[in-house]
Amino acid sequence: MAIVIVNLPSCFLQGILERLDAGEIVIGDGGFVFALEKRGYVKAGPWTPEATVEHPEAVRQLHREFLRAGSNVLQTFTFYASEDKLENRGNYVAEKISCHKVNEAACDIAREVANEGDALVAGGVSQTPSYLSCKDKTEVKAAFRKQLEVFMKKNVDFLIAEYFEHVEEAVWAVEVLKESGKPVAATMCIGPEGDMHGVSPGQCAVQLVKAGASIVGVNCHFDPETSIETVRLMKEGLQAAKLKAHLMCQPLAFHTPDCGKQGFIDLPEFPFGLEPRIATRWDIQKYARKAYDLGIRFIGGCCGFEPYHIRAIAEELAPERGFLPEASEKHGSWGDNLSMHTKPWVRARARKEYWENLKPASGRPYCPCMSKPDGWGVTRGAKELMQQKEATTEQQLKELFQKKKF
Amino acid sequence: MAIVIVNLPSCFLQGILERLDAGEIVIGDGGFVFALEKRGYVKAGPWTPEATVEHPEAVRQLHREFLRAGSNVLQTFTFYASEDKLENRGNYVAEKISCHKVNEAACDIAREVANEGDALVAGGVSQTPSYLSCKDKTEVKAAFRKQLEVFMKKNVDFLIAEYFEHVEEAVWAVEVLKESGKPVAATMCIGPEGDMHGVSPGQCAVQLVKAGASIVGVNCHFDPETSIETVRLMKEGLQAAKLKAHLMCQPLAFHTPDCGKQGFIDLPEFPFGLEPRIATRWDIQKYARKAYDLGIRFIGGCCGFEPYHIRAIAEELAPERGFLPEASEKHGSWGDNLSMHTKPWVRARARKEYWENLKPASGRPYCPCMSKPDGWGVTRGAKELMQQKEATTEQQLKELFQKKKF
Amino acid sequence: MAIVIVNLPSCFLQGILERLDAGEIVIGDGGFVFALEKRGYVKAGPWTPEATVEHPEAVRQLHREFLRAGSNVLQTFTFYASEDKLENRGNYVAEKISCHKVNEAACDIAREVANEGDALVAGGVSQTPSYLSCKDKTEVKAAFRKQLEVFMKKNVDFLIAEYFEHVEEAVWAVEVLKESGKPVAATMCIGPEGDMHGVSPGQCAVQLVKAGASIVGVNCHFDPETSIETVRLMKEGLQAAKLKAHLMCQPLAFHTPDCGKQGFIDLPEFPFGLEPRIATRWDIQKYARKAYDLGIRFIGGCCGFEPYHIRAIAEELAPERGFLPEASEKHGSWGDNLSMHTKPWVRARARKEYWENLKPASGRPYCPCMSKPDGWGVTRGAKELMQQKEATTEQQLKELFQKKKF
Amino acid sequence: MAIVIVNLPSCFLQGILERLDAGEIVIGDGGFVFALEKRGYVKAGPWTPEATVEHPEAVRQLHREFLRAGSNVLQTFTFYASEDKLENRGNYVAEKISCHKVNEAACDIAREVANEGDALVAGGVSQTPSYLSCKDKTEVKAAFRKQLEVFMKKNVDFLIAEYFEHVEEAVWAVEVLKESGKPVAATMCIGPEGDMHGVSPGQCAVQLVKAGASIVGVNCHFDPETSIETVRLMKEGLQAAKLKAHLMCQPLAFHTPDCGKQGFIDLPEFPFGLEPRIATRWDIQKYARKAYDLGIRFIGGCCGFEPYHIRAIAEELAPERGFLPEASEKHGSWGDNLSMHTKPWVRARARKEYWENLKPASGRPYCPCMSKPDGWGVTRGAKELMQQKEATTEQQLKELFQKKKF
Repeated sequence: MAIVIVNLPSCFLQGILERLDAGEIVIGDGGFVFALEKRGYVKAGPWTPEATVEHPEAVRQLHREFLRAGSNVLQTFTFYASEDKLENRGNYVAEKISCHKVNEAACDIAREVANEGDALVAGGVSQTPSYLSCKDKTEVKAAFRKQLEVFMKKNVDFLIAEYFEHVEEAVWAVEVLKESGKPVAATMCIGPEGDMHGVSPGQCAVQLVKAGASIVGVNCHFDPETSIETVRLMKEGLQAAKLKAHLMCQPLAFHTPDCGKQGFIDLPEFPFGLEPRIATRWDIQKYARKAYDLGIRFIGGCCGFEPYHIRAIAEELAPERGFLPEASEKHGSWGDNLSMHTKPWVRARARKEYWENLKPASGRPYCPCMSKPDGWGVTRGAKELMQQKEATTEQQLKELFQKKKF
Repeated sequence: MAIVIVNLPSCFLQGILERLDAGEIVIGDGGFVFALEKRGYVKAGPWTPEATVEHPEAVRQLHREFLRAGSNVLQTFTFYASEDKLENRGNYVAEKISCHKVNEAACDIAREVANEGDALVAGGVSQTPSYLSCKDKTEVKAAFRKQLEVFMKKNVDFLIAEYFEHVEEAVWAVEVLKESGKPVAATMCIGPEGDMHGVSPGQCAVQLVKAGASIVGVNCHFDPETSIETVRLMKEGLQAAKLKAHLMCQPLAFHTPDCGKQGFIDLPEFPFGLEPRIATRWDIQKYARKAYDLGIRFIGGCCGFEPYHIRAIAEELAPERGFLPEASEKHGSWGDNLSMHTKPWVRARARKEYWENLKPASGRPYCPCMSKPDGWGVTRGAKELMQQKEATTEQQLKELFQKKKF
Repeated sequence: MAIVIVNLPSCFLQGILERLDAGEIVIGDGGFVFALEKRGYVKAGPWTPEATVEHPEAVRQLHREFLRAGSNVLQTFTFYASEDKLENRGNYVAEKISCHKVNEAACDIAREVANEGDALVAGGVSQTPSYLSCKDKTEVKAAFRKQLEVFMKKNVDFLIAEYFEHVEEAVWAVEVLKESGKPVAATMCIGPEGDMHGVSPGQCAVQLVKAGASIVGVNCHFDPETSIETVRLMKEGLQAAKLKAHLMCQPLAFHTPDCGKQGFIDLPEFPFGLEPRIATRWDIQKYARKAYDLGIRFIGGCCGFEPYHIRAIAEELAPERGFLPEASEKHGSWGDNLSMHTKPWVRARARKEYWENLKPASGRPYCPCMSKPDGWGVTRGAKELMQQKEATTEQQLKELFQKKKF
Repeated sequence: MAIVIVNLPSCFLQGILERLDAGEIVIGDGGFVFALEKRGYVKAGPWTPEATVEHPEAVRQLHREFLRAGSNVLQTFTFYASEDKLENRGNYVAEKISCHKVNEAACDIAREVANEGDALVAGGVSQTPSYLSCKDKTEVKAAFRKQLEVFMKKNVDFLIAEYFEHVEEAVWAVEVLKESGKPVAATMCIGPEGDMHGVSPGQCAVQLVKAGASIVGVNCHFDPETSIETVRLMKEGLQAAKLKAHLMCQPLAFHTPDCGKQGFIDLPEFPFGLEPRIATRWDIQKYARKAYDLGIRFIGGCCGFEPYHIRAIAEELAPERGFLPEASEKHGSWGDNLSMHTKPWVRARARKEYWENLKPASGRPYCPCMSKPDGWGVTRGAKELMQQKEATTEQQLKELFQKKKF
């Protein structure tokens, strides 16, 4: 099979829904906050995107790397860029930068790079401190609307509501984004156990589609395998409700078989000791294949996904798509660039079965393979209390747990 | 202790030897080929730096990130940029790019970024295919001299001969570089067992200093702990020979307790499955402290070192140096940026003892902790045959092993 | 708390049901086939108990060790001693030994040792080849009846039907054993997913109690933690059906978090590489406490349980029972026998928190922590096919899997 | 190759030296204190052998199992049975049992069982508290002489001085034992770093042979691989000194790649959490082969060796010896007893390559693979201080370490 490397597949001239409706595979991008934290431009903890104003060249370069790796969608770097969030945590930012400026700069940078490759630009909103503290629908919606105004002014191609732990807030976000008339995708940061109020993935998907989302799925918080399982449950829920939507998956590039309901945040390694969990490119190829086999067509990544992970998706699905991304100029399929090595045992690694079957060692014999997650949200107790309706909110759960001294 | 974040410490106006002679700590930069491979600009296998011509913006951005993270020295991205190497492996490069152009562009980019922060620029040469194939001293030296011409024309601040497995070739490189009159540093990619001909680290150091190197040490191939041990042996060798030199260390940011004499290249995970071995920032802080305690004052990294690893060196040694790097604007010491987190168990991670004592899990329960290195070079047999003088070259060893079917 | 070591608690004069009805804790014994295999008297594979005739002194000694460790029940060593099984696999037995003789000798030895400590003797039957090959109720029952005749002649104190993968066969066994008029206990070798036809643990328990078992639970195939979870589901099933029975648990002394529906037999380490999975005495103390807390009062072990594991149950529950077993003469609670050690760091191990929190290393850095079970029974596919009623027997499942090439 | 199972090879009628001189392989027995601790007859901590008097049937049974497994030598269970040791720790022994009685009973039991198979009986002495506390040669020798008197009265076949950390005391023991005129074997519990005063294994071997030992080697404290390496160094030392002796190895059946100079006692898992380190029978077959290949002809085991481990030695070396032990009646070579299993994937385990290549999982994903040993004896510091002659005794070392707060 001869696969050509091309820069501008003609299919890119169409919108997100036209493409998905036509059965195309759409490749998302990777995780900005983690990648830029390691590059020195984002602060872990607040995780806010003021870098769009402070260091636009660093944001631009990362967009370019994802584009080059095969991303068909560039998300504006507006994660946690709602006004309440930025004000909340803004004290480490050198000068006072307005929420408005951050969002505008994010749109400009994404569009500039997208034009270099005709990718689509997606404006993104995510969960807000307002929801967690007061839950006032009007107030929360107002926060989303403020970001949406910028996206409309800058004319992004479509919108993504992502990283929601509570389907209620996600629905509000979708309702606001739908006011724009643009296509809306919605992803929750949940696992197979569902959202923080115990709403199952299937039910979450149903509510999001009913609220107007054309694309639903999950992002962040869990590893590829767990995330695919969650999307599978979403698919089942939609089928049972006789609803139709495109499926989307943007998981972590970390192995997290040991995390609880709230995902990797509760793992003791979060966020500064996750290195041994980082997925290899081969892990990501397996993910891409599994996602495709389940019928997911919007396939990308979240925290931990670096450009080479996105390239791995594009390389795995090159037979289906008929082309390779630009960055594959510098990458051989399944390690075939090692076939010229001077050492025979390194040359022997230039084949698919080698990398597919490798069980990579950690080099850390004093460390375990799995961790017990911290927090009260992960225990059997929590699940049961919710099932028994003794608690229906996190706050109630927390109080119950404190009483019982879990 | 109040540590200020500054951009341009006045001390940077001096040359490398003035600074080291004055007892200053000099922080090196990280690994370009691995970082740029993940970003999509370098091909694993050949590992050549044509990106300086093809994608200067990507090289420039990485230099900037290291500078921002605290690097006081920017090495020209000229690894494996000797003419014989580039010709050898050049067929995947879109257009024919001359060795000369690659080296010139590397110097220009490094100088441009160095000026943004007054860092020093170091021109670097590394081992050549010529040495391995024919061993003609004149020819090998000619290759180094070609690169040196560019470094002189571009007026780099000093020179580094790095990544040598054979002290003989390293000595030749130092001899050529010394012709320039500029200070010369020399690092070998060896472990405590010494070079590929069985020359001990102590003897290697002695030969390099006698050849004219003012700074000696190791880079690449082994993890920080092993590399520090090797430099310790070099230090002992110099002391025994009553020679003086500054010490330098630029190890991998991978845990490799299980590798053999030839380092991480022989590990089955090299180069596409090394993720679980990646060092955390806390591992690097420990390395920086240990290196400092041994008397090493030129402290940097090699393959696997990303900007945040370099920042970790700068943060660990901030008390000694009196200042933090620019990128620490976006980083709290020992996780203190987590102290505002909404979850109490995440807030509890905002302290030094937590991260210092964490044994990070791999999330890979089906994978082992250590691997057996491939290859004939790592067995006891090899060592003994060399000690018994039955073999003095790799080729002889190889033949002996083939006969004996090791 | 002063706990005396006694030989003959007066409570032992009563029958099994009197004791359980009175709320007493009854401690079972450990696993004969595995222990005697390691001592050289049982052949792995067939696992038959002809040692009762060939080497009675070895069987007697193991009974004595369990009695001394605290066992209140000595099970006759009649595992797999049905006629069909013994004939099936008997060719490695030196001389032809009749099924009858094996069962009689087993009863005599158990009674002889039980009398040394006034323990109860339980006659045991287990699943038969007949059931798996032909499923004829009359024939299968006849096999059990043959063993029962011996148990009646030798007047055992009560009967145990154990190690059944199919509740149908277990029910048949209970029905036969009930003919004797003696109390009957029944344990299945299943996990939380239920029996091989997909009958849930709760339903299994209900059927066994309805068939006449006074004590129900699980034995073998899974580790303590999984087994307790299975008994919990049985308890729930009985509560939902408003049935009453005593609960019993005799799990493996191997850690098997990674096994599938059919338990440890499908693990690649079965049966000759299970060593790294062996439970410590402290693991067993945790198990005893958890079992007790769930309301289980017949607490013992199966394969892998050595005398010191049984002693660990007796020591953990000594506060509730008021006495320690004889073998505790040679054992300090929680390592307190180390308090006189010459090395201070070994003395520091003489405390509960030390052993409770120890995460014991395997000393095997080239081995993984978990294995993928072999076989078709363990995949998600199997479970789903059974749930979807596409298959209701193993045979059908097997055929379906073969077609789909799982 | 047809290998017969025999009970009484005619070769057994000869003495230990006649057999070794004739090139025969002599198989030792396993570890009594650990095996009997698990069976409930020995107390961890003191580890003394009063069971010979208190529970002779248990000691006799274990001897029988080793004999049946292939042991050609039965060691009297007189470990730590010197008078000073027994008095020291005797308070947990029900009635006061004299040292004399313990040693006599041990000889009687060993002889009784040895006669069942014509094995040899070896009387054993081990290191004494007297040496550690006062170091008076006369007093220490008196303790050995007291035990020797019993051995002479009971007419054991030969003598073993085993488990010595200090070559000085081992030499004293050999000198006393030589007074008897019987052959003397001597094994130290040291690793490749040598004895506690820094005497190398080679030097230890030389001193022991000069003192009169005909057989030298190591026992206990380290795993098979490390122990073989230590014996290799002993062999080199003897060759260099032009001395001749038979070699002997009786290691742990625990994997201890992570232990320091003083062996497994300093590992955090000692003695109650060593389970995950237990060697499989296949590990022991590898050990037997390696030991044989190095020229070791007295091959046995120490702590952790159960009867099936001894059988593994006998099975591995059956081709050389021409016969299998009795216990092989109940064991197929390399798992071939699984070839009749009903499940095809279990049948697939009935072959050598399967078990030889299996990397057994621990089933403990929350545990590490290696531990850091406790204690001051294991650090680099200790070694260096001894090399630098700042300390030549443990006491001096201890003081130096306390001052430096290691």
